[in-house]
Amino acid sequence: MSYPWARRVGGMASSAIREILKITERPDIISFAGGLPAAELFPRTELTRAFALAAGDPLALQYGPTEGYGPLREYIAGVMGQKGVPLTAEEILIVSGSQQALDLVAKIFLDPGDPVATELPVYTGALQVFRSYEARLSALPGDGHGPDPGALERVLREQRPKLIYLAPTFNNPTGRTISAARRRELAALLEKYAVPLIEDDPYSDLRYSGNPVPPLKAHDAGGRVVYLGTFSKTVAPGLRLGWAAADKEIVAKLVLAKQGVDLHTGSLVQRALHRYLTWSDCAGHVAAVRREYASRRDAMIRAMQRMFPPGVTWMEPEGGMFLWVTLPAYLDAARLLPEAVAAKVAYVPGTAFFPDGGGANYMRLNFTNSSPPLIEEGVERLAGVLSRYCSG
Amino acid sequence: MSYPWARRVGGMASSAIREILKITERPDIISFAGGLPAAELFPRTELTRAFALAAGDPLALQYGPTEGYGPLREYIAGVMGQKGVPLTAEEILIVSGSQQALDLVAKIFLDPGDPVATELPVYTGALQVFRSYEARLSALPGDGHGPDPGALERVLREQRPKLIYLAPTFNNPTGRTISAARRRELAALLEKYAVPLIEDDPYSDLRYSGNPVPPLKAHDAGGRVVYLGTFSKTVAPGLRLGWAAADKEIVAKLVLAKQGVDLHTGSLVQRALHRYLTWSDCAGHVAAVRREYASRRDAMIRAMQRMFPPGVTWMEPEGGMFLWVTLPAYLDAARLLPEAVAAKVAYVPGTAFFPDGGGANYMRLNFTNSSPPLIEEGVERLAGVLSRYCSG
Repeated sequence: MSYPWARRVGGMASSAIREILKITERPDIISFAGGLPAAELFPRTELTRAFALAAGDPLALQYGPTEGYGPLREYIAGVMGQKGVPLTAEEILIVSGSQQALDLVAKIFLDPGDPVATELPVYTGALQVFRSYEARLSALPGDGHGPDPGALERVLREQRPKLIYLAPTFNNPTGRTISAARRRELAALLEKYAVPLIEDDPYSDLRYSGNPVPPLKAHDAGGRVVYLGTFSKTVAPGLRLGWAAADKEIVAKLVLAKQGVDLHTGSLVQRALHRYLTWSDCAGHVAAVRREYASRRDAMIRAMQRMFPPGVTWMEPEGGMFLWVTLPAYLDAARLLPEAVAAKVAYVPGTAFFPDGGGANYMRLNFTNSSPPLIEEGVERLAGVLSRYCSG
Repeated sequence: MSYPWARRVGGMASSAIREILKITERPDIISFAGGLPAAELFPRTELTRAFALAAGDPLALQYGPTEGYGPLREYIAGVMGQKGVPLTAEEILIVSGSQQALDLVAKIFLDPGDPVATELPVYTGALQVFRSYEARLSALPGDGHGPDPGALERVLREQRPKLIYLAPTFNNPTGRTISAARRRELAALLEKYAVPLIEDDPYSDLRYSGNPVPPLKAHDAGGRVVYLGTFSKTVAPGLRLGWAAADKEIVAKLVLAKQGVDLHTGSLVQRALHRYLTWSDCAGHVAAVRREYASRRDAMIRAMQRMFPPGVTWMEPEGGMFLWVTLPAYLDAARLLPEAVAAKVAYVPGTAFFPDGGGANYMRLNFTNSSPPLIEEGVERLAGVLSRYCSG
């Protein structure tokens, strides 16, 4: 059958990660490939109770406002204040997971051919979105502390990006965090060049060491930053609940766009989450998740130190869900993957995070979704594969 | 503040209905304006139980597949079979309400400037979607039985639409249903001109009289029809759950598009709905809803017969949620609305459903969201306003 597809369909590829995940669903494989939280830590009992309580609200099963459930917007405005970004409920839009907010922001800003600048390596889900709007992607040069302000200014001057995308804290895939000083410099450049930026922040609550850094949006005097938050990592991704925090004028356009794409996010799930957040010890829950993830991060680092061959190195992030491993330059992680899967361990090759090639000698390892003993075992299997190729 | 909006933002207007709804939220107004189901009929107890049971599934709070929860896809494939459309679970995509499916179908088929043909009058949410993809809209001429096949063939030949949109059964706003014979003719034309069609079917389960007519997709030998279904009218809209049923090749593209826009629909809500559908008496529930809505439709028709001035007429639909009222040609329902609101009754003026002007002397009345006594009272108030202008 031949169908008259839109041009943008040519740019739509399934996320490489989702394809790898399908291969690695076999129960005998220890998968470090996904970006999944630990399901055994989800606050199942409390959420079940919250759903039962929320269902008592006569509006919980009815159509609702596109902007979201008022008390949840209020609550999130409070959360933003605690993060150093004082704002009102009118500056919050509830979305069905922050991936939806990414899509909506692209929808209101991008025409085909518009230039978009992103950090590199970059979250593959952001690439999918920008490609579906037929944007021209360019990379922001940087270092272990994120994009370099001087390089950003050159890109702003020479390429005039319509939109910038960054995950400043514990970014996916590398785990690196942009320093407070550099955030201030980046925010000043946004203002100077009047360019909007998406600050994607799914991971900042998963900090295991070091001190919190205020969001880039805390330095956003001119309303250029659209901040994206999510409950997927702190509560549960299966709820599909996140938010965008932005200038009211931007929120108004996002609301129009969201009205067309799904009318509104579920009424019951918004109320249930609000009950959970206000009636249970959510802070205590997140603290427990942090403790467990820290021990998993440490278990993975210790195992790699002990077993990985010389020449293989990694960053030690202060939070997030991933370790970013550098192989010797002559190795290609994508070409090693079949051998790893044969040894019953999986990861995501670095190339998935580089839109225009590159990144072949990197791999991303998730440490949140395996217990410490499985992490040990998986690293041992991976070390076995790597040792065949790393002479040391 | 000035932001560099995308071109499509110029075509995004808030739904006229949503704006009217905001005005008419005052509790002293009897609103026939919305398209809301009766909240007091929602199966609250059963759904609460279904959520509690579903939360026991270890995957209910985790990320899930974009295609949707397997058993729910299977169940829906069975529903489609009962409607006369035998297909497999692989031909079903779960979406966050059928509005999302509308958006996704437009996303995979429409480039800016592409012609889209719709019935007239037409669901405003469909117009919002097509405008957001910068489509060129054209109307399919028809009569009380829907688009005329001869006229459709002319449009197909002369305008070469990239996509067609129809709600064949109890359409919003008029309530008219396309006959089985005409459906066969329309399906044959889709095949002859190789053009895809969206069959939007939110209302067919709300039939109060007459005999069911199989979906247009039942005549779709060539895989041209994308059928959209929803649980918003039969179970509860606040869950935001619907589906698209289409050729596997189309489903594959919709999955890619959905991956970018929200990864997947909520894991818990899909499982809870599946429990509800399989463990409770959903058929009995829908039968009870039908009985109540039939009595509300009849109450509204009787009240209009008794109180509306001569010169005001209406269609008597066999199902759905709306009555479509024709005023004398010299009246403009939009200009009467402020007087109606002053008399504490509201409706949607016909112009909302005509993309290029027209429809001034129509109004859409919803009968599902008011009890029979309120319907009586509201029709009396509206009759008072109309009587000032209709000499009879």
